[in-house]
Amino acid sequence: MPGLTLADARRMLDAGLAEADKIGQPMNVAILDAGGHLVAFARQDGAIRASIDIAQRKASTSILMEAPTAALMSLVQPGAELYGLEQTAGGLVVFGGGVPVYRDGDLVGAVGVSAGSAEQDVQVAEAAAAAIKA
Amino acid sequence: MPGLTLADARRMLDAGLAEADKIGQPMNVAILDAGGHLVAFARQDGAIRASIDIAQRKASTSILMEAPTAALMSLVQPGAELYGLEQTAGGLVVFGGGVPVYRDGDLVGAVGVSAGSAEQDVQVAEAAAAAIKA
Amino acid sequence: MPGLTLADARRMLDAGLAEADKIGQPMNVAILDAGGHLVAFARQDGAIRASIDIAQRKASTSILMEAPTAALMSLVQPGAELYGLEQTAGGLVVFGGGVPVYRDGDLVGAVGVSAGSAEQDVQVAEAAAAAIKA
Amino acid sequence: MPGLTLADARRMLDAGLAEADKIGQPMNVAILDAGGHLVAFARQDGAIRASIDIAQRKASTSILMEAPTAALMSLVQPGAELYGLEQTAGGLVVFGGGVPVYRDGDLVGAVGVSAGSAEQDVQVAEAAAAAIKA
Repeated sequence: MPGLTLADARRMLDAGLAEADKIGQPMNVAILDAGGHLVAFARQDGAIRASIDIAQRKASTSILMEAPTAALMSLVQPGAELYGLEQTAGGLVVFGGGVPVYRDGDLVGAVGVSAGSAEQDVQVAEAAAAAIKA
Repeated sequence: MPGLTLADARRMLDAGLAEADKIGQPMNVAILDAGGHLVAFARQDGAIRASIDIAQRKASTSILMEAPTAALMSLVQPGAELYGLEQTAGGLVVFGGGVPVYRDGDLVGAVGVSAGSAEQDVQVAEAAAAAIKA
Repeated sequence: MPGLTLADARRMLDAGLAEADKIGQPMNVAILDAGGHLVAFARQDGAIRASIDIAQRKASTSILMEAPTAALMSLVQPGAELYGLEQTAGGLVVFGGGVPVYRDGDLVGAVGVSAGSAEQDVQVAEAAAAAIKA
Repeated sequence: MPGLTLADARRMLDAGLAEADKIGQPMNVAILDAGGHLVAFARQDGAIRASIDIAQRKASTSILMEAPTAALMSLVQPGAELYGLEQTAGGLVVFGGGVPVYRDGDLVGAVGVSAGSAEQDVQVAEAAAAAIKA
């Protein structure tokens, strides 16, 4: 089974950018391979620059945790089981916008999106992830 | 009194891995010496990769604080006495899975376990730590 | 004068990737804006992963020094005027593959290319930079 | 094709430790998967502790550069093409003891060995890497 190719990554990237255009929110979109290494990235005009790191870190978090970043938010709250988790493993992001990408049941990479609301980021990330199945 | 040998560490590691197998949760297990330096480590197939760091950091925290990591959780909550502790000393972990290891009353090292629930992590860490007494 | 747009960056990126294809060496190509922030990135299939960082760092170095990275090599040798420069400013790269990008005389960004020989990296970076003038 | 399992990693680790015993030099041995994530590690009694990091970093360098670390030494010397390379990508090691591991032509991981002379480290790393083919 081949890993994620640049062609795969750019198909996902372009699907994410198209979704961002549709909702009218400029975004940073990062595509990582299964080992957590960057394959493709784009920042749309007007998207904030902190999100260059946040988008990549969301994707990386999804790889390291094998979960969407949105799933972590409740676990790291004061009083919750994994309080302080976000400070481990080089710094994890615990709000929505990172999703792992599977093909035929295998983890092949992750998408990270940042610059909008968490809800918008998730929507764009899921649109990007869906493109690999098409 | 001799410190922790690799033979000691691997006996603990293997006891931890056996416990992880018994509960059916793949784990990352790290064994550190009394100085906080890694002696042995294993990641079971399917265990999440964020836990490579978390397991080692839990063990390290147990050495630095001379306490199980689970004992720290209540102390670092908002309003509690050591709020923010987890950001000191290079980054501590405050949820369960790290335990200090004693032999004849002396601290000789620590075990850190990560990838399951905090409760599972503690169970595996304690099984590992118990192996040095056998 | 508008800054570097994503459309500009992708035109440069694609010109770089096309040049890499022509010489048959898979590359990492990064495009940064004038503030040194990533706009677009692609890693071709088979390009080494160390170069994900190196490509971005070459582009960043070109912005920070306002010079092609290849111009720094002789200056940082033992005995030369800027010996040790590469350890400043967060880590600079002093071998070829990073070039600043100008439009109408203004610095608008930089290209960083890595994974081939320094000579190949420079060739691809210059092909990318030329695309903004077309 | 499955990735590197813990069973694979421990077979390599044990082959490396046996080789270290044979030459009488206690070693740190690290086994990483293809994504550069730690799978198994052991430090033999008496092996220096700086090598905990060095062994892992050698293995990581072999993954990131897709080359044995010993191959980098001449390239990074003063006056050579990649002078300063070791400061990129989070810190690379350019002396011998890290080797990439291939199975059926695919990169599946890397071995990093440290605590002896570079020549000894290479010998142990190669013994470890050979174990996956047996």
